[in-house]
Amino acid sequence: MKKNKRPYIFITNDDGVNSKGIKTLIKLMCQLGDVVVVAPDGARSGMSNALTVNHPIKYKTIENKENLTIHSCTGTPTDCVKLAFDEILTKTPDLLVSGINHGSNASINVIYSGTMGATLEGCEKGIPSIGFSLCDHSADADFSYFEPYILKIAQKVIEQGIPNSVCLNVNAPVGKLKGVQIVRQCKGRWVNEFNKQQDADGKTEYQLVGEYQNLEPNAIDTDEWVLSQGYVSIVPTKTDLTDYAIIKDLNKWSW
Amino acid sequence: MKKNKRPYIFITNDDGVNSKGIKTLIKLMCQLGDVVVVAPDGARSGMSNALTVNHPIKYKTIENKENLTIHSCTGTPTDCVKLAFDEILTKTPDLLVSGINHGSNASINVIYSGTMGATLEGCEKGIPSIGFSLCDHSADADFSYFEPYILKIAQKVIEQGIPNSVCLNVNAPVGKLKGVQIVRQCKGRWVNEFNKQQDADGKTEYQLVGEYQNLEPNAIDTDEWVLSQGYVSIVPTKTDLTDYAIIKDLNKWSW
Repeated sequence: MKKNKRPYIFITNDDGVNSKGIKTLIKLMCQLGDVVVVAPDGARSGMSNALTVNHPIKYKTIENKENLTIHSCTGTPTDCVKLAFDEILTKTPDLLVSGINHGSNASINVIYSGTMGATLEGCEKGIPSIGFSLCDHSADADFSYFEPYILKIAQKVIEQGIPNSVCLNVNAPVGKLKGVQIVRQCKGRWVNEFNKQQDADGKTEYQLVGEYQNLEPNAIDTDEWVLSQGYVSIVPTKTDLTDYAIIKDLNKWSW
Repeated sequence: MKKNKRPYIFITNDDGVNSKGIKTLIKLMCQLGDVVVVAPDGARSGMSNALTVNHPIKYKTIENKENLTIHSCTGTPTDCVKLAFDEILTKTPDLLVSGINHGSNASINVIYSGTMGATLEGCEKGIPSIGFSLCDHSADADFSYFEPYILKIAQKVIEQGIPNSVCLNVNAPVGKLKGVQIVRQCKGRWVNEFNKQQDADGKTEYQLVGEYQNLEPNAIDTDEWVLSQGYVSIVPTKTDLTDYAIIKDLNKWSW
């Protein structure tokens, strides 16, 4: 792909355009290039690759400077990417970054994450795409230790590119960081997922909560392991969900 | 896993508990075992693996027979699976089936699909899980040619099992069918994704529409190809999105 003179960087997220995480990411990316933001107008956590199919979406421009334009959108994170590429962006970005998410998107969380939904959508559009997440859900999470790593990883991807069938799922633990490790997605799952409670009319309702369970706590080549050891984890992540190893086995069944 | 005497089958979908597709699937699965349904109370297409995180969900029982219980739920397809396993099911199912979806979930559609979101969630729970989709969006789609294949595939999976890290994405074209092919997910994307229109106040809004573009129309080992040839496609599908081939390359970068 022909490089833009100054990198043209697209930003989105799932915590909404006013979250601390995206503001931090905007600040960092403005050091590297010209920035366009299209992000949800409020929280869209856990939206995965969800699309708004049953009603229209809208966007409005909330900041318009020479090197930074910010739009807020009524849709999901994936909607934001689709709308940006179809209607808003004036040229092809050199990089898509999503986040910084308030909360881990390591292990199985990747399939539920709106941050990674948007990142996979960027990948699908053929753009080098990176999702950044900090393992801290709080609204005022401290991204400061993560910041130099985000800059370095983004800059490397702009310079060296990544194959256009793959994007990066980058997570960081809280606190000081020891470096970067390239790893695989840890096997994990959520258990005890709901709080059972009563609504105002005494009817039973269920609030999603859940506890994460690491299914391979002793494997040292996973994102969960290196995060527990103080490293930034990078999992190369793809949109082709085919389990190639099983195709041969299934062909042996008599169909 | 110890088999239940009579197979215990869990059903969900994304078109809602009253759609023709799920009614067809219920009819078929009742031929194979005892059935419990927890499905959305209305259309949840394009919900991917989305979770309801910001407010509680509820369910109600709408049918309660000896061998068939049906519950409708206010959540997403993935919520339905989570709530069922945490709060509703009385034993571990032998099979999870999702659908029959009104519309294709072949190729890249797998990442947006609520039908496949629920199927991936079943896989994550360690249950043999199958998503069934017919390439016809209409509410009164004709599932009759697909029905014997659905029965056969479900029965085979109950008898033979599938590795618990993999689920099946099963699609069928409209009309008479020539057989079953085990294939990979085709590379494809959506373009021209929005209709730009005016709301009642004259403000611009964007309705998701889009045209599917097959990026490898001549590859004969893909779901799109065999569907175009009149076959039922089965893609073994997994929740581990790691691109293992790229880990080595990324380790060569100086971090």
